[in-house]
Amino acid sequence: MFIAMNRFKVIRGSEADFETVWTSRDTHLRDVPGFITFHLLRGPEREDHTLFASHTLWASRAEFEAWTTSEAFRLAHRGAGGNKPLYLGHPEFEGFDVVQEINAG
Amino acid sequence: MFIAMNRFKVIRGSEADFETVWTSRDTHLRDVPGFITFHLLRGPEREDHTLFASHTLWASRAEFEAWTTSEAFRLAHRGAGGNKPLYLGHPEFEGFDVVQEINAG
Repeated sequence: MFIAMNRFKVIRGSEADFETVWTSRDTHLRDVPGFITFHLLRGPEREDHTLFASHTLWASRAEFEAWTTSEAFRLAHRGAGGNKPLYLGHPEFEGFDVVQEINAG
Repeated sequence: MFIAMNRFKVIRGSEADFETVWTSRDTHLRDVPGFITFHLLRGPEREDHTLFASHTLWASRAEFEAWTTSEAFRLAHRGAGGNKPLYLGHPEFEGFDVVQEINAG
């Protein structure tokens, strides 16, 4: 499994607007091969920003990479950049491979 | 839902040892109230380290916080610090609340 994260330093006071951009958009992920689950995460508050992360679980890194060059990806990101700046700098991308999994038992 | 992450900057060349510490330890998580799933994640390679993250999904922040003061937590971390340094600095903790969830459909 593979986890794709993007970290966003959202400007203090813009948290609700940032959440609305995500929760009101069309998602084009549900039927993408290899897509398992997506979470938008709200993290700790810092002096000048609140950390958010988008967090997507994929069956494999290869299927994630195939999606990034697909029409579904283009549609999902069509609106990006069209809003007033809600976060500092650029989102920071990090891809993770799953080494170990433990489930409640 | 609540996600607890710890980020580790593992020294280049120590990645296999770091993974072994995690995969060979006793886990005391399975039966902890509110625990859902745990992943050890291997992230991008940087010049002086490879990023790893431990990533635990909890039913609520309150159940995570209850665990951090429990006997199970003490047991799980008993061995921490006993190994030669495998990572730079201290692990960086970040807690996240789930804002939005989308599942494959």
